[in-house]
Amino acid sequence: MFPQNSIGLVQPQYFTFAEDEPFQLESGASLSPVTLVYETYGRLNADKSNAILVVHALSGSGHAAGYHAEDDDKPGWWDDCIGPGKAFDTDQFFVISSSVIGSCYGSTGPMSVDPATGKPYALRFPVVTIGDMVNAQIKLLDHLGIEKMLCVTGGSMGGMQALEWAAHIPDRVVSVIPVATTARHSPMLISFSEVGRQAIYADPYWNGGDYYDQPHKPDAGLAVARMVGHITYLSEESMHQKFGRRLKGRERFGYEFQTEFEVESYLKYNGNNFTRRFDANSYLYVTKALDYFDLVEQHGTLVSAFEHSTQVKFLVISFTSDWLYPSYHSKELVSALTAAGADVTYLDIESSWGHDAFLLEVDTMTNLLGSFLDRLVREEGIVAPEPPIG
Amino acid sequence: MFPQNSIGLVQPQYFTFAEDEPFQLESGASLSPVTLVYETYGRLNADKSNAILVVHALSGSGHAAGYHAEDDDKPGWWDDCIGPGKAFDTDQFFVISSSVIGSCYGSTGPMSVDPATGKPYALRFPVVTIGDMVNAQIKLLDHLGIEKMLCVTGGSMGGMQALEWAAHIPDRVVSVIPVATTARHSPMLISFSEVGRQAIYADPYWNGGDYYDQPHKPDAGLAVARMVGHITYLSEESMHQKFGRRLKGRERFGYEFQTEFEVESYLKYNGNNFTRRFDANSYLYVTKALDYFDLVEQHGTLVSAFEHSTQVKFLVISFTSDWLYPSYHSKELVSALTAAGADVTYLDIESSWGHDAFLLEVDTMTNLLGSFLDRLVREEGIVAPEPPIG
Repeated sequence: MFPQNSIGLVQPQYFTFAEDEPFQLESGASLSPVTLVYETYGRLNADKSNAILVVHALSGSGHAAGYHAEDDDKPGWWDDCIGPGKAFDTDQFFVISSSVIGSCYGSTGPMSVDPATGKPYALRFPVVTIGDMVNAQIKLLDHLGIEKMLCVTGGSMGGMQALEWAAHIPDRVVSVIPVATTARHSPMLISFSEVGRQAIYADPYWNGGDYYDQPHKPDAGLAVARMVGHITYLSEESMHQKFGRRLKGRERFGYEFQTEFEVESYLKYNGNNFTRRFDANSYLYVTKALDYFDLVEQHGTLVSAFEHSTQVKFLVISFTSDWLYPSYHSKELVSALTAAGADVTYLDIESSWGHDAFLLEVDTMTNLLGSFLDRLVREEGIVAPEPPIG
Repeated sequence: MFPQNSIGLVQPQYFTFAEDEPFQLESGASLSPVTLVYETYGRLNADKSNAILVVHALSGSGHAAGYHAEDDDKPGWWDDCIGPGKAFDTDQFFVISSSVIGSCYGSTGPMSVDPATGKPYALRFPVVTIGDMVNAQIKLLDHLGIEKMLCVTGGSMGGMQALEWAAHIPDRVVSVIPVATTARHSPMLISFSEVGRQAIYADPYWNGGDYYDQPHKPDAGLAVARMVGHITYLSEESMHQKFGRRLKGRERFGYEFQTEFEVESYLKYNGNNFTRRFDANSYLYVTKALDYFDLVEQHGTLVSAFEHSTQVKFLVISFTSDWLYPSYHSKELVSALTAAGADVTYLDIESSWGHDAFLLEVDTMTNLLGSFLDRLVREEGIVAPEPPIG
């Protein structure tokens, strides 16, 4: 049995487009066909005004809430915030979540079969951008017949997609909630991406990306990439709280090259675990999309990026101990939005959890998202959907 | 020709000990024999009271100042601070710098030949600690006939060795200057060490450490380890200043998996370069020594660690943008030293250069070190050495 406030069992759905006319990418390349896997939670109301799009981060997927099977040990990644009575209340809202293109959770990406060859694309898959990910989401919403989203929200890379919505298609969104994110990927962020990629390239099993039909995958390289990433999602303080300098399963130093500290064991476990659920080529593609993201370069200034977004309502959230996407990135964003004349609420949440705080500060996030959405419901006159039949 | 205030050509010297009685390590293991490579700059005065020991960081060596050859393109790593008229004024002081055991610059380490097998130790080399490194330095000073050091100083891992001197042999040191360091390696520091080690283990050419007689070394893994390290030595701000989001040798994104951003190119260059001057096994040993370092655990509290150091004069230096060894580590150290009754001067230097600031903030460091040393000379009545003959 699932917890009472869980959305329960959910079924991934598939939408395929660009079968006749190729999907144009920002690079100039194109893709045909394109499949998006997505899930929905709650019901659309009569005037289709209660839809919320939730977009995921680097290693996330479209499985944002509920369970895929009765015996799943974990629900979707943002289950704490999506469900009946939760921040994204599925009694009130119709929540949509889809996996980004370029990744490995069912939407078209480097693991997909290239129709030109009948084999996986691997590195023949075109490089995609945050803009391309969003353009694919728009095709999905067209398909679902939703003209305007009540809200687009996500943390980290999800926050970039939310900002892309606000900057490029402001007339199709009432509000956006970018969380723990940036409008411009910094050189430090690029550096961490690149080190992860280099760790993958360095693995001989990577084989230039062609490993899908090989007995070995570049697991060692991908695990190192993930370990690097994992450090950046924590804070020094949260590491002290979670692990300190405690040893794992021993009382004294072993003076040998084994895993000795708990924090080493945690990183190694997470690195290895990640290789069972993520694809190394997808890691390359998704990090590359992150690195390219820069609304300043695209528009000259950050203010210009949002000059057509004056009707969009923004709730910008950052966390004090997030050193990967530090609060000042959000503050720069808020200044630009304010200068552009947008309606902005900003909160820099006191937290010791580092970047991961956006998934862990559940009570604070629930209150914050809840009151922002209440305001939207009131101001936009959003009517709850019909109760389910039966 | 060398710059006028350079110490000029220097000659590494070798000291071998523990040929009869093995050198005992903190782990319980022992080494026999042990060689230290060292350099000296300036001259010892008549009462041997003007000796300063400079100790290096993770990837450094005993080559701290001057040049090994007329055509060297770079001097030793702290040449900015060591030389005639510089902070460590070689007209006044006798500066000694030696390479730590466990590393790869000539002192005994995993590359050295194990007398038991006639082959390089590789991973049969015993794990060494910061304490072992310092104990080896003491043997060198005994050999040089110096009873008491005027000062022991270093940044990062060098700062840990300086603290080890102050905590464990306070009667042999007048002052210590720990720079950009910590008394206790944090879980975040352990994490970065471990990711570097995992990148080396993941390289098939590492071969369990036995690669010295193989055609390939684990260069790819070591390069990734170095890239991770390099990011942590910079700050977000210094990365913005040095690289921003500039592209390298191109005007537009290539939408391909090539080095595109300047910061990527810089990391890759440094990673590859490092493999030409450093040994992968040594990287494992030296990072392990860092991870074990914890004066709190050894003594119960940080105050107890320094309870016998009340006669030692401390100059503690940290840098505001150093997120690897953040200022608050130094502040905790200063509080403990003050509580223990030691004579402490502390400076948290405003700098945007991150951890690397200790090598880059030359003017500030020169002034600061200079005035601290002037005070020592005055208070201790240090007499300058005889001028050189001829």
